[in-house]
Amino acid sequence: MSSEFGKNIKLSIFGESHGKAIGCVIDGLPAGVELDMDKIYVDMSRRAPGKDRSATPRLEKDIPNIISGVLDNVTTGAPLAMVIENTNAKSGDYSNLMMVPRPSHSDYPAYVKYSGNNDIRGGGHFSGRLTAPLVFAGAVAKQILEQKGITVGAHIAQIADVCDDMFDKNDISAELLKKLSSVSFSTISAEAQEKMRAAIECARLEQDSVGGVIECAAVGIPVGIGANIFSTVESHLASMLFGIPAVKGVAFGAGFDFAEMTGSQANDAYCIKDGEVALKTNHNGGALGGMTSGAPLVLSAAIKPTPSISQPQQSVNLQTMEEETLVIKGRHDPCIVPRAVPVVEAAVAFALLDMMM
Amino acid sequence: MSSEFGKNIKLSIFGESHGKAIGCVIDGLPAGVELDMDKIYVDMSRRAPGKDRSATPRLEKDIPNIISGVLDNVTTGAPLAMVIENTNAKSGDYSNLMMVPRPSHSDYPAYVKYSGNNDIRGGGHFSGRLTAPLVFAGAVAKQILEQKGITVGAHIAQIADVCDDMFDKNDISAELLKKLSSVSFSTISAEAQEKMRAAIECARLEQDSVGGVIECAAVGIPVGIGANIFSTVESHLASMLFGIPAVKGVAFGAGFDFAEMTGSQANDAYCIKDGEVALKTNHNGGALGGMTSGAPLVLSAAIKPTPSISQPQQSVNLQTMEEETLVIKGRHDPCIVPRAVPVVEAAVAFALLDMMM
Amino acid sequence: MSSEFGKNIKLSIFGESHGKAIGCVIDGLPAGVELDMDKIYVDMSRRAPGKDRSATPRLEKDIPNIISGVLDNVTTGAPLAMVIENTNAKSGDYSNLMMVPRPSHSDYPAYVKYSGNNDIRGGGHFSGRLTAPLVFAGAVAKQILEQKGITVGAHIAQIADVCDDMFDKNDISAELLKKLSSVSFSTISAEAQEKMRAAIECARLEQDSVGGVIECAAVGIPVGIGANIFSTVESHLASMLFGIPAVKGVAFGAGFDFAEMTGSQANDAYCIKDGEVALKTNHNGGALGGMTSGAPLVLSAAIKPTPSISQPQQSVNLQTMEEETLVIKGRHDPCIVPRAVPVVEAAVAFALLDMMM
Amino acid sequence: MSSEFGKNIKLSIFGESHGKAIGCVIDGLPAGVELDMDKIYVDMSRRAPGKDRSATPRLEKDIPNIISGVLDNVTTGAPLAMVIENTNAKSGDYSNLMMVPRPSHSDYPAYVKYSGNNDIRGGGHFSGRLTAPLVFAGAVAKQILEQKGITVGAHIAQIADVCDDMFDKNDISAELLKKLSSVSFSTISAEAQEKMRAAIECARLEQDSVGGVIECAAVGIPVGIGANIFSTVESHLASMLFGIPAVKGVAFGAGFDFAEMTGSQANDAYCIKDGEVALKTNHNGGALGGMTSGAPLVLSAAIKPTPSISQPQQSVNLQTMEEETLVIKGRHDPCIVPRAVPVVEAAVAFALLDMMM
Repeated sequence: MSSEFGKNIKLSIFGESHGKAIGCVIDGLPAGVELDMDKIYVDMSRRAPGKDRSATPRLEKDIPNIISGVLDNVTTGAPLAMVIENTNAKSGDYSNLMMVPRPSHSDYPAYVKYSGNNDIRGGGHFSGRLTAPLVFAGAVAKQILEQKGITVGAHIAQIADVCDDMFDKNDISAELLKKLSSVSFSTISAEAQEKMRAAIECARLEQDSVGGVIECAAVGIPVGIGANIFSTVESHLASMLFGIPAVKGVAFGAGFDFAEMTGSQANDAYCIKDGEVALKTNHNGGALGGMTSGAPLVLSAAIKPTPSISQPQQSVNLQTMEEETLVIKGRHDPCIVPRAVPVVEAAVAFALLDMMM
Repeated sequence: MSSEFGKNIKLSIFGESHGKAIGCVIDGLPAGVELDMDKIYVDMSRRAPGKDRSATPRLEKDIPNIISGVLDNVTTGAPLAMVIENTNAKSGDYSNLMMVPRPSHSDYPAYVKYSGNNDIRGGGHFSGRLTAPLVFAGAVAKQILEQKGITVGAHIAQIADVCDDMFDKNDISAELLKKLSSVSFSTISAEAQEKMRAAIECARLEQDSVGGVIECAAVGIPVGIGANIFSTVESHLASMLFGIPAVKGVAFGAGFDFAEMTGSQANDAYCIKDGEVALKTNHNGGALGGMTSGAPLVLSAAIKPTPSISQPQQSVNLQTMEEETLVIKGRHDPCIVPRAVPVVEAAVAFALLDMMM
Repeated sequence: MSSEFGKNIKLSIFGESHGKAIGCVIDGLPAGVELDMDKIYVDMSRRAPGKDRSATPRLEKDIPNIISGVLDNVTTGAPLAMVIENTNAKSGDYSNLMMVPRPSHSDYPAYVKYSGNNDIRGGGHFSGRLTAPLVFAGAVAKQILEQKGITVGAHIAQIADVCDDMFDKNDISAELLKKLSSVSFSTISAEAQEKMRAAIECARLEQDSVGGVIECAAVGIPVGIGANIFSTVESHLASMLFGIPAVKGVAFGAGFDFAEMTGSQANDAYCIKDGEVALKTNHNGGALGGMTSGAPLVLSAAIKPTPSISQPQQSVNLQTMEEETLVIKGRHDPCIVPRAVPVVEAAVAFALLDMMM
Repeated sequence: MSSEFGKNIKLSIFGESHGKAIGCVIDGLPAGVELDMDKIYVDMSRRAPGKDRSATPRLEKDIPNIISGVLDNVTTGAPLAMVIENTNAKSGDYSNLMMVPRPSHSDYPAYVKYSGNNDIRGGGHFSGRLTAPLVFAGAVAKQILEQKGITVGAHIAQIADVCDDMFDKNDISAELLKKLSSVSFSTISAEAQEKMRAAIECARLEQDSVGGVIECAAVGIPVGIGANIFSTVESHLASMLFGIPAVKGVAFGAGFDFAEMTGSQANDAYCIKDGEVALKTNHNGGALGGMTSGAPLVLSAAIKPTPSISQPQQSVNLQTMEEETLVIKGRHDPCIVPRAVPVVEAAVAFALLDMMM
């Protein structure tokens, strides 16, 4: 059981929220890839907190410091190690949580699993902050994929009961994905974005939080990536996506809507388009028999509402074994869905690249 | 990319639908486990086709022949190898599929990936028949889990628009799960079952097929199995579940319903029950921070409608590169959801056991 | 801990000496490779017992039965599964070993590890017979390597105090390797072979056994296979070679002779030969910095004397915990080195191919 | 192909000799282990250069900076990340090597493999300096093993033609191993040490270098660690040992001496000692059938002479493709064997712990 992912490229993530630093090692990258650091900073910034009222006011620069594997902005083929210092940690805020686990957080099972030795400050290694190295790794992966003609992008499909327009699964342009993956609160519809921001602000005022759904796509993928049984493209992507804290569901193409479809509705017929085999529809979300079909890869990830809310909650004191009312102080996002968009993109990009190496 | 799963116990599945045999190797089982072969046959039989009109009339005995790793019904600690002979293959039925890929099947990407060398007869290694060894492995895993006080069971939550009663996520008895996992068309509500059978028969008469959802639970799991980031219990289970052909979505606890919930609704408060820490609700489906919480593990898997339908479908001829109308002959399930129930149980049981070894 | 090897191609070996069958699954082979079964039979036959007085008289046909992954002699890309039935097992011969472990065999640690549940008949899963599937896998790997211009071959470098001529490390022809890998008692010098046979016959008459050394080479390997630190070509090959029962030492190039060499003697200078970079010597055995250097890969494996000898030996009874004199009945090789030659070739070929996929 | 090792505990090593920093991530350590940093410093210091004339005068403090996974000197269960800054790099010394590969170094195959993108300064990721994080990881592993009653220690068995006393394979005390693993130039015989130092000084004066052999042992290991076929204790240890630059041979117990032994000489008879099963001899070096036998684990590693020597050497210019005489400037060890002792201990300790988790 480890904080590591990958078969051909290994991503090893380390760090605790209020320790000295967080970071990652990416082992197996090809040599000779020129990295555009500005593009990496864009993704890091999309995930970083503190940009508007929809996010936690914790301000951190989250500047990734590459300490090996890159020389003059070009990968050397040696493991790429990256470190982000923790500069703004306020561990005092969390002192009352030591013995009273926060509902729907990792606190209680981690306490049992690690016999109380885990670093509980800010969630320790379980903090959402550990997604920063994942976004970094994803940003690197995206640049390599881009060189192979593959583009990954995602948007907020839903927050609370507000839904964005969905991707047209069989007709997604690289331009749309690039646009979505360059901004901080990615939606297709500007109107939906307005309503989502309102829903988040509403939750914030009620000392509550809201969840949502992120829809992600990748275009330009060759046919035949992945294999059947235990190496399906769905298995590999889902395995990484479920490593993102708060992701509780992953679905490809029509996903759970397949339940009410018939075969004649759900099957994606073939046609010839520009002399090539093409699909007339893409209900399968770009994956057939566990392999990519050539159509856009389309998936959804369900994000649960931020568990940290300011309202009093029922918990227990693990020392006295008595019930106790808990009030979580500190800084919290009323909705992490917008910040999770680049994280979902990163997981999809990294897992895809790993399958293609 | 391989037909293999597991970190501590390796399951390697082999075989092609119309080849000599299918089977598996399970490497890493503990020595000294007494296997009840009758229980294994029950699960094999639940998956096997031909029991009623909801399934394909292909009759096979699917008798697992254990050729190593078991002596006098007790595991020896050496790899357990099992073989099932293919006795009833009619390869002639599939001859017209050679160059015209069936929509929503693996045919087209497999043709590209393997340059036409893959065994296309009956889907070859991509056939749903390859789930038989998985059910075998799951049946072995279930027996070992049972000895640890863990019970796994599943039911058909939905077929077409007919829904079964759902599990009460925080109160599931081992008895209910055992009952569900001992019958062939597992539902909680007898009335829902009647309606589901009617919906399947209706699809059959229309030469069509229907999809559904399977809900699976496991009880008796200790707190703290799994870890955060890339070793979450959700990652590991989803990775195996998405290895089952036709599974297109996996969700834990409230899953995609989390999108419309607030934190105050979704959070699972703690209480003291019989002197132990317990959860008041189980929206998280037994997994917190990637680890088991002690509450029942509850998940759903979306199953797409059987792609093989008898209606004419639009496809292309890969040799002539012209569009062609395809009529699939042969034997097909109008709904594979009932037969997929033991497969989902098997994946959950095996992945759980693998995490606990 | 598993009977499995490989990162890109997985070899999973199963079976027990006196069980129903032994065999293997090779997962990850490329599709479209035509297999020459006769070449496979040659290697199987070189390893098989009973060909002359230097080997055990146990007669088995060891015919590999491919049950999946090959259609019309061409690989399909699906896992290749192969089974060899055990037809000539005489389990009665071993009954007195149940509680009295044979010295230098796996019996005692296996008894402790598996709490007495392991199949002890004929060594069970620890039997040298389990190298038959390895030879099969190696024979498949050799054919794929041959298509890439790589040839693997080995000879008996030493038995008892009789030494064969050694490879000229910087000048080994594919022809020599092919010749060595096509016969049963491979030596470079016919005279050495005569003396080795005499030494083995001498040991047989004395109810004793002898060990030896096998030297193996591979030519035609491109520069740069392997990597430093934990993915060195030496690590990968040694890891597989030490999986062969009786191998107790592995050395590359000058190996242990490096200890007495100076840098100026040991360093392999570069030159230009036919317009290409070449080495003037090959003390490093074709591996520099963990990577192949383009020179022939040359390694030695030390083989301990067969532990099964007919002389009375001191052991203990694990039940009574009293010392006991043991006389091993049954059929034994006075020297397994000749039969181990194709096994060493197989390990080198498979591990090399795995690194090159 | 990665700079990573381990099945249950993953060690990922990163860094380049003249980059910003080197370090490692150890993922999978148990939580709650108190680390004695002083003991870690001792091992780091034994490996560090510059202590006497037998080593390179490059002075570095090599202070390991733990940035995650340890809180108040106790492991938290999260990945342990450690960084060592490179403070004394003089990259100018190596400028003339850019296009003229040093004989017996990684330079040439690395140039081919990474198309010239690898960091060549000081050997980059191929530098022996990368063994510093391995020694750190081994020092952590040793402390955890010590708590399980297992002690690892090694000594210089040979340098040039000077041999130390060898371990009495069946009677090695933890005290001896602790003593050996606490000093910088570990030998059993003080007289041998004197002669070895003289041999190294002699090589230094001749602008040459010398190789040697390190013998390592571990005592207190329970019976049954490891398994047969591809999970043998020999495979796992050798796999890590061959990851150490300059190791060209690994042998267990009698190793290559087995070749000239008969079975009756080589077999380790059993006896009863203090009511327990024991071995009368330990020619097998503590490993039988791939599993630990309860006797001390004893192995030897052959170390080739330092390839960097000051004498002029023949090489080629990769740009002009002409032969060229190379003179290596900079700082070099005339013998790395003494500094390699803690590295061998580290590899053995880490690989053992990994097998026992």
